[in-house]
Amino acid sequence: MDSGLVLKTIGRLLIIEAVFMIAPLAVSIYYNEPDFKAFLIAILITGFTGFALGFIRTPKEAVRYKEGFMIVGLGWLLISIFGAVPFLTAGTFDSFIDAFFETVSGFTTTGATVLADIEGQPHGVLLWRSLTQWLGGMGVLVFTLALLPAMGLSSLNILKAESPGPVPGKLVPKITKTARLLYIIYISFTVLQIFLLKIAGMPLFDAVNHTLTTMGTGGFSTKNSSIAAYNMPSFEWIIIIFAFLAGVNFSLYHDVLAGKLKTLFRDKEFQFYFVIIVISIILITANITKSWENIQPSFRQAVFQVVNIITSTGFTVLDYSIWPAFSKMILFILMFFGGCSGSTSGGIKIVRVMIVFKYIKRELYKMIHPNSVISIRIGGRTIPEDVVQNVIAFIMIYILIFLGLSLILLTQDMDLISSTSAVAASLSNIGPGFGMVGPVMNYSGLTALTKILLSFSMILGRLEIYTVLILLTPFFWKD
Amino acid sequence: MDSGLVLKTIGRLLIIEAVFMIAPLAVSIYYNEPDFKAFLIAILITGFTGFALGFIRTPKEAVRYKEGFMIVGLGWLLISIFGAVPFLTAGTFDSFIDAFFETVSGFTTTGATVLADIEGQPHGVLLWRSLTQWLGGMGVLVFTLALLPAMGLSSLNILKAESPGPVPGKLVPKITKTARLLYIIYISFTVLQIFLLKIAGMPLFDAVNHTLTTMGTGGFSTKNSSIAAYNMPSFEWIIIIFAFLAGVNFSLYHDVLAGKLKTLFRDKEFQFYFVIIVISIILITANITKSWENIQPSFRQAVFQVVNIITSTGFTVLDYSIWPAFSKMILFILMFFGGCSGSTSGGIKIVRVMIVFKYIKRELYKMIHPNSVISIRIGGRTIPEDVVQNVIAFIMIYILIFLGLSLILLTQDMDLISSTSAVAASLSNIGPGFGMVGPVMNYSGLTALTKILLSFSMILGRLEIYTVLILLTPFFWKD
Repeated sequence: MDSGLVLKTIGRLLIIEAVFMIAPLAVSIYYNEPDFKAFLIAILITGFTGFALGFIRTPKEAVRYKEGFMIVGLGWLLISIFGAVPFLTAGTFDSFIDAFFETVSGFTTTGATVLADIEGQPHGVLLWRSLTQWLGGMGVLVFTLALLPAMGLSSLNILKAESPGPVPGKLVPKITKTARLLYIIYISFTVLQIFLLKIAGMPLFDAVNHTLTTMGTGGFSTKNSSIAAYNMPSFEWIIIIFAFLAGVNFSLYHDVLAGKLKTLFRDKEFQFYFVIIVISIILITANITKSWENIQPSFRQAVFQVVNIITSTGFTVLDYSIWPAFSKMILFILMFFGGCSGSTSGGIKIVRVMIVFKYIKRELYKMIHPNSVISIRIGGRTIPEDVVQNVIAFIMIYILIFLGLSLILLTQDMDLISSTSAVAASLSNIGPGFGMVGPVMNYSGLTALTKILLSFSMILGRLEIYTVLILLTPFFWKD
Repeated sequence: MDSGLVLKTIGRLLIIEAVFMIAPLAVSIYYNEPDFKAFLIAILITGFTGFALGFIRTPKEAVRYKEGFMIVGLGWLLISIFGAVPFLTAGTFDSFIDAFFETVSGFTTTGATVLADIEGQPHGVLLWRSLTQWLGGMGVLVFTLALLPAMGLSSLNILKAESPGPVPGKLVPKITKTARLLYIIYISFTVLQIFLLKIAGMPLFDAVNHTLTTMGTGGFSTKNSSIAAYNMPSFEWIIIIFAFLAGVNFSLYHDVLAGKLKTLFRDKEFQFYFVIIVISIILITANITKSWENIQPSFRQAVFQVVNIITSTGFTVLDYSIWPAFSKMILFILMFFGGCSGSTSGGIKIVRVMIVFKYIKRELYKMIHPNSVISIRIGGRTIPEDVVQNVIAFIMIYILIFLGLSLILLTQDMDLISSTSAVAASLSNIGPGFGMVGPVMNYSGLTALTKILLSFSMILGRLEIYTVLILLTPFFWKD
């Protein structure tokens, strides 16, 4: 492996990070708040490190796929470490672990917070928090829709991207082209949502922050009680719509922009995503509605929480931990599903869930017709058997990691519901869970080990597990 | 399908059932208790029905595999219905649903009971309850080690049985030969355990009953508080040993009987089974032991509950619901594992769990070596890819059924822990769960719908899901 190249590339990412820190710096100056010094220091540290890494001499410039894994894995880690600097220099957190947790939760677009008093923070810090999620969301899109397919590792994006198989040569040109289109779509949605929230009456600063964290399906809020603080149905519907859109495969918007709206509705993954959401909303609304007068707010709450959980955004409009167990279990199952492949959402992803159903159906058919050879098809496309295997193994690993981490958390003074939901909420990059990490709670009271494990879990989930896990296998390091 | 043949075969099973009812009849006469009339009526009804079905004329005598599925699925249902008759005629239960639940729980060797006052029952009823589990255990051995392999459907028994592929001809001779050997081993273990319990001081009637339900990994007890009622370590160790033995693949005992004890210890599934048990015991003992004086009883309790849960026997020596959440979660995970394939235990089975781990390992290796073609091997044998697929699909279906049934039970006034553990305990044929169905509780307080669903779940689990599920697919009924 060419370590120089890995560090050099990460250096470039750090410079980009430093550039984005200028926004909260500007905001802190505008509001004349003391955290501008904190951002100045952070920009200097991050920018200088990135600049210094640029001087590393490296024999070649081609990113091979081993380097790709390292850049992604190590890059996410280092960006989170440097991203934590403003929280420390501004005095938001005393402990590095808390600052690191919050930054990982940001860049992975999870939205789990260890910040008990959000509203007491200066504007710059709040904006940086939101910005990490927006950048993280964009990073994920580039990672899953440009980087992984170019590396021939697009099990996740099987329906849309043309998977060319492993490319030993240069990855950069293909990535750049796809990435540019994604930036345009992502930024357009962002501008539109800020505009809509503003005209619905949300203060501009809040509108910007909530939009940044909606598009990244992150869920950090500038309010302690999240969206419940406003009690404004119009805000809720706008967030519902954009969280829903952020949970759709962004490749589909390419066709929508080209005027082919039908492509979206004909996409099987989109259909399945839509149907799961509708069924969940109906079941939960029926379960939580106690009287006819009550049905309208119940319906809105059900829509809001279902969309916010399945897309892994994680905003809350009420304490859903008071819902009946039936509704809570539906939310718990949705925590694993996630949105569509190629979206900013976390979780297993809808297309993988579809493959599981088709896999089971095929097996039942084969028991009666043992000699039949059937391929799994989605939307007219045959899914290659090795991709099917990869997806199935992914889900198995997901379940094992979920069980293993939950067990460890139980040794850290957590109850069963809190530990399992904290792991699910971090692994699927959602944010709030149940119990001690429920919608009206936060992650600040947990032990240091728990915070470190959950940070690991967030990165693991965000990078689709394999990318991280492969760095931990002996195979990877053998040549 | 030849329905006549199906009914005729089930008729023979009913005659066997009636013959076995003579044992509780004899016991009720010996103790001079009023339930002898109940058994007389039940024997007449069951025997007469079986006899009448024998008169059905059928063109051929060869059981093809569609008939095989029907005999197994419908047979288990009808045997449970007729097996419930003594409970109704003896007045043990007023409702048919309760009597049916108890009988299904018996024949599937689950051991979940709706009988609140066990000790108030006459001896004949108690013996019939235990006998259903012993018969169920034997039925399962014949089903998985003789019938399924002869039908070419032995995904479960991949390591030992020679799978000849679907046999369209006569199944009977091969089944008879394997079955005879199984009977001998099963009966030998039974005699030995009764003898050991008796000399350890357990009353003969209790020793017979607990042995019948240990060998079937059932777990019905003649005491309200199960094995905790005796507070005798010697009884506990004897039950631990025989429950452990009942969780091993019975094919291995063939070699052990032939003097090749090494075969047992070289068997990879046995090794894995042993290792999981040891690790679970160490973790739980460490977790529940509060002081050094306390370590010996804690260790025994941990061994007892781990073996009783993983083998799906389900006897209890204490209220493990007071254990810390960490230990409870380990038990909960073990509920899914089950014992070895080809044993009387329920659950997913160890060999399937091993295949999952190997499947994941292969996938990680393939990510670095994309062009490698690797087979999954266990103990030097290659597992064919279609068997691997079948196993993986089995586990996926298991999880989906678990989630689906748990959701429905939540609408029946159950909390999350109670509903999920009741479904796991019935699907894996264990018996006790947590919460409302915990070790010091029983299933009597649940709604009628819950009892019906859990009965279905027990049969589903016992027949390895596919056998039942396939009867519900449209493919099966098309010709």
